[in-house]
Amino acid sequence: MKAQMNPIIAKPLTRAAFAPYGEVIEMDGAHHYPINGGMAERFHDLARVEAAGPGGRVLVSLFRGQPYALPLALRLVERHPFGSQAFFPLQDRPWLVIVARDGEDGPGVPEAFVAQGNQGVNYPRNQWHGVLTPFGAAQDFIVIDRGGEGANLEEFTYPSPFPIAVRD
Amino acid sequence: MKAQMNPIIAKPLTRAAFAPYGEVIEMDGAHHYPINGGMAERFHDLARVEAAGPGGRVLVSLFRGQPYALPLALRLVERHPFGSQAFFPLQDRPWLVIVARDGEDGPGVPEAFVAQGNQGVNYPRNQWHGVLTPFGAAQDFIVIDRGGEGANLEEFTYPSPFPIAVRD
Repeated sequence: MKAQMNPIIAKPLTRAAFAPYGEVIEMDGAHHYPINGGMAERFHDLARVEAAGPGGRVLVSLFRGQPYALPLALRLVERHPFGSQAFFPLQDRPWLVIVARDGEDGPGVPEAFVAQGNQGVNYPRNQWHGVLTPFGAAQDFIVIDRGGEGANLEEFTYPSPFPIAVRD
Repeated sequence: MKAQMNPIIAKPLTRAAFAPYGEVIEMDGAHHYPINGGMAERFHDLARVEAAGPGGRVLVSLFRGQPYALPLALRLVERHPFGSQAFFPLQDRPWLVIVARDGEDGPGVPEAFVAQGNQGVNYPRNQWHGVLTPFGAAQDFIVIDRGGEGANLEEFTYPSPFPIAVRD
């Protein structure tokens, strides 16, 4: 009989917990200051945008993501050698963020976070991450990433899937 | 008796109408293609991001804008000589976009657009525009603009204000 793996439980997304993997794009805890005669508040410079490699430039795109069933059976992670990739949700509902540290034989055991609908993330270059993972309903995102020449996508398939769950 | 100026009526924001001023960031009419095994659709490369000048780099920030009363008395426009500036709303409600062409003596008569809650805009370098203008309620935006050294803000105050209205 095959051993059943305990699911990886997604943790709340916080700057501190996510620090090894990238930036959390959120107002809470951000440096901010008034602009426009006090009519707006600027929460300033929340992601390190990278667009390297041949012809590298920064893109702004919109993604419409279909929801994944939970628990997720995570098999694939990817990374981008030439540029960062930032995601911010356009509907205020939670979504799933999956990352893994790089190791000698590729990415290690993944770690999962539940982002709230007012939280985005930015993955630096070469940060292993799961694909965009809404759950419960389709969700749109604004995405800031890198365009240009060269192979900017590296994929890794785990030999067996990791179950990933979100606490109710 | 002072002449009363007819208000400038904000027009619906469309790519065609806004083309002289910058890009509309929206899914409608955008080049798009499936990614992630069909689980997401990418609406690709919707804004020309510019970050020039000394130490220029791309910033991702969040703005919380307070609502302006309508009709607006527009007196101030601004532009950024070193970088583009993109705004996308995080709550699905209309907001006001104000732009003006450059002329011999500074910006000309402003033009106004009502953006829907699923529409952002990107102003290129040196495009005169009004400050962030939500109406009806406070509204948050994700903003992609330029950081670095040098004077990246130029302001212009019209000798008399332009009234700007939104059709009910």
